[in-house]
Amino acid sequence: MLKKVDVRFFKSPEEFGLKDPVMIEGLPGIGHVGKLVADHLVKELKAEKAVEIYSHYFPPQVMVEEDGTIKMPKNEVYVHKANDVAPDLVILVGDFQSISNEGHFELVNAYIDIAKKFGVKRIFTLGGYGIGKLVEEPYVLGAANDPKLIEELSQYDIQFEKGEPGGGIIGASGLILGVAQLEGIESACLMGVTSGYMVDPKSAKAVLEVLMKMLKIDVSVEALEERAREMERIIAHIREMQETTIQQWKSDEDLGYFR
Amino acid sequence: MLKKVDVRFFKSPEEFGLKDPVMIEGLPGIGHVGKLVADHLVKELKAEKAVEIYSHYFPPQVMVEEDGTIKMPKNEVYVHKANDVAPDLVILVGDFQSISNEGHFELVNAYIDIAKKFGVKRIFTLGGYGIGKLVEEPYVLGAANDPKLIEELSQYDIQFEKGEPGGGIIGASGLILGVAQLEGIESACLMGVTSGYMVDPKSAKAVLEVLMKMLKIDVSVEALEERAREMERIIAHIREMQETTIQQWKSDEDLGYFR
Amino acid sequence: MLKKVDVRFFKSPEEFGLKDPVMIEGLPGIGHVGKLVADHLVKELKAEKAVEIYSHYFPPQVMVEEDGTIKMPKNEVYVHKANDVAPDLVILVGDFQSISNEGHFELVNAYIDIAKKFGVKRIFTLGGYGIGKLVEEPYVLGAANDPKLIEELSQYDIQFEKGEPGGGIIGASGLILGVAQLEGIESACLMGVTSGYMVDPKSAKAVLEVLMKMLKIDVSVEALEERAREMERIIAHIREMQETTIQQWKSDEDLGYFR
Amino acid sequence: MLKKVDVRFFKSPEEFGLKDPVMIEGLPGIGHVGKLVADHLVKELKAEKAVEIYSHYFPPQVMVEEDGTIKMPKNEVYVHKANDVAPDLVILVGDFQSISNEGHFELVNAYIDIAKKFGVKRIFTLGGYGIGKLVEEPYVLGAANDPKLIEELSQYDIQFEKGEPGGGIIGASGLILGVAQLEGIESACLMGVTSGYMVDPKSAKAVLEVLMKMLKIDVSVEALEERAREMERIIAHIREMQETTIQQWKSDEDLGYFR
Repeated sequence: MLKKVDVRFFKSPEEFGLKDPVMIEGLPGIGHVGKLVADHLVKELKAEKAVEIYSHYFPPQVMVEEDGTIKMPKNEVYVHKANDVAPDLVILVGDFQSISNEGHFELVNAYIDIAKKFGVKRIFTLGGYGIGKLVEEPYVLGAANDPKLIEELSQYDIQFEKGEPGGGIIGASGLILGVAQLEGIESACLMGVTSGYMVDPKSAKAVLEVLMKMLKIDVSVEALEERAREMERIIAHIREMQETTIQQWKSDEDLGYFR
Repeated sequence: MLKKVDVRFFKSPEEFGLKDPVMIEGLPGIGHVGKLVADHLVKELKAEKAVEIYSHYFPPQVMVEEDGTIKMPKNEVYVHKANDVAPDLVILVGDFQSISNEGHFELVNAYIDIAKKFGVKRIFTLGGYGIGKLVEEPYVLGAANDPKLIEELSQYDIQFEKGEPGGGIIGASGLILGVAQLEGIESACLMGVTSGYMVDPKSAKAVLEVLMKMLKIDVSVEALEERAREMERIIAHIREMQETTIQQWKSDEDLGYFR
Repeated sequence: MLKKVDVRFFKSPEEFGLKDPVMIEGLPGIGHVGKLVADHLVKELKAEKAVEIYSHYFPPQVMVEEDGTIKMPKNEVYVHKANDVAPDLVILVGDFQSISNEGHFELVNAYIDIAKKFGVKRIFTLGGYGIGKLVEEPYVLGAANDPKLIEELSQYDIQFEKGEPGGGIIGASGLILGVAQLEGIESACLMGVTSGYMVDPKSAKAVLEVLMKMLKIDVSVEALEERAREMERIIAHIREMQETTIQQWKSDEDLGYFR
Repeated sequence: MLKKVDVRFFKSPEEFGLKDPVMIEGLPGIGHVGKLVADHLVKELKAEKAVEIYSHYFPPQVMVEEDGTIKMPKNEVYVHKANDVAPDLVILVGDFQSISNEGHFELVNAYIDIAKKFGVKRIFTLGGYGIGKLVEEPYVLGAANDPKLIEELSQYDIQFEKGEPGGGIIGASGLILGVAQLEGIESACLMGVTSGYMVDPKSAKAVLEVLMKMLKIDVSVEALEERAREMERIIAHIREMQETTIQQWKSDEDLGYFR
């Protein structure tokens, strides 16, 4: 049985032995900037999978892998124990955000609950900030749930622009900051400025570099472009295929009933 | 964890020491007339914040303030202890109404529950009544959940027009009257007639003046125009930014899935 | 507090002292045929109000009456004790059907529960069957949840046409038959054939006459036309007003957020 | 009372005395390929009805049968005890899939729960794979929740194509594989390639033949074409009738309220 929000730990949070870890969230979103950075970190750091999250708020479908096996939509949490000056990391990545408004809140409740179980003291959510035109020199826009954190982050290449983004921050990247604030967990959202029209590895690189400096981690950025091209290929493929599938599905639904 | 409707009292209702207070509701709505009046009262009376209300029925996003800190969508209750002939006040203001039909009922249940906890004996909900054309001389249209209250209110500059508004009263301002009726709490809705096309400080002034006379309170109306201009600026800005953001968000959603 | 489906008995079902009553349902629907007949019966029989039903599945608004008092959307059950050969009646009338798909099931569960509390042995649901063109001589189409009932009803002026209505019966009038079947309560739906374009008193008269013959009740049909004209007037008025109201409401919603 | 997902066993699962049965699912979907095959199997094998499933996630309506009796939307489980080399079968057929996203998950939870109650060890879900153009020689595309199962199934006329279907598998046929995977039940989806434009008996025949070979069952395929023609007739009829009905229903809904 799959619960509405179904969080499955691979072992108890304590067993991972993390110390005051920093959480990083990178789910699908504008320009897939956040997802690109978080996926990249998981792979480059060879982080260990710790949690799987299934939900009724994800689309009611499975994906099919290259070898014909299916993949249930899920989000995942990976952990990375640091062996030097860098903090331990808890990285939230995945396939989807909620497809219903209310589901966003239920899922974010679960993310914060996971953070608390790992003893997370600080959260960075990653995203893109789409400006609707090509960006020559991407930079990183920030927002935070605590003025002291803004002060601290201003030392890095993060812009805090008066009231930007004006439209607020939609989805998990924003709500996590809000709920974390109520729970007393410092959090900031780092947004790579991007056109919003495509998967944007240059914007992701800007976010990754800020993150590496802040967290004192060091990973190659080389694979980022290749990952973005791969993502674009998959997205283009999916878009094409889904159009066919969904149209047929819908025309069946229109039928209403069938006995 | 954020409950579906999450009501957080700053201290227990009794500690505020209110006596038979009157509740005033002014949430976003037509012409933002109700919100404008209620916000104005909170500021002019320097009312004290007593309750914060968060909800899964608000949009799944956070706003970003001027200084880069985020703001979780919430409604708030302020209280004002009168020191003379005026009644104590409980003022409900906030960012949003429910974005789902059923959420309206859940939230109004919470509002009435708060009213009962404060011992509220009478509720005034404030709103705009849009007539779709410019209004030279705004006036106040009323509706109430009790014929005796209509009689009493008719002494003031409140019109009770045969069966108006014909389309009923949509959202919290209407439902509060309905649920209060079932709970035996006298309530009336005061609607400033307005075009409905913009934030309308003249309509708000008409409502505020009626309210001041009825409640024997005295606040300056001067700041009302400036507040309305400020609201218009914010709305225009938001509208512009959101269009970009939402379009990009949607185009990502259309993608369906992403692995 | 208003429950999702909030059923309020005026006194306990037993106190009404009904004996094997027949339930009649007439809620808004195609041509408002069912509502017209059921409302007419309630008024002509001077039936006694027994139950009020409020619900989160109704629209989040209140209506405003002629005198300025508000009216919470509700459905109602009236009872009529027969003093002769006719059976006791339990009549379900009201303002709305559910506005969500799932709400239909929740509300029908409540209706059947009320029927069982009154010891109802048979249910007639009333509706219109729209054929999309003017009907010179309206007649009554039937469907039932029991072949024996079809046989019995065929003695009256009720047509059982091969597989009609082909699109099934949507909403409470259909679902009541389905759920009643699972509970072992005989039920039939009587549909007045109508264009579907307007409130149709001629179609309602056809249904009423069949019903009167079957239930051995005798009420004047004279007021039916006047009631239909009144309904049309109200509907036209509402439609006009709501268009204005809803447009403004929606344009405010589009704004997204407001601080 | 009808529960959100209401599973009604005709007798306890043990009483059916099945031994390690195989479950086959064939609900409405693309080209109605899955439904056609599963319905055909139920009829040809004269399988015994074991379970009825009602749900708030089905459309809020009843269908009307040829004789005027109504039929509540439901899905059904039939069982077939094999008397030779073939495995016992548990066949899930029915009128509808969920009409809401979240309902799909609730219903699939129920399907898997039924499978577990019957001791099902393997599940085949059946569907169509629409390619948007006429298919001369339909074949069967497969996907599975276990690489070992793919290996085994590759012996039969089932194609496992690199990453096909690219759009994933939507609805019960896909989700069953996903949830079964989490429960440790081997499952595969067999999709008959089809245009997606009509009920496709040729595609169904391809799926049926694979299934017969794998399960060592032997049923006539003759009636398949006739069943498909019958389905098409019903669908065409329903489509026509529903268009009228739904349009009128919607125009009533637009009215908003009615007193």
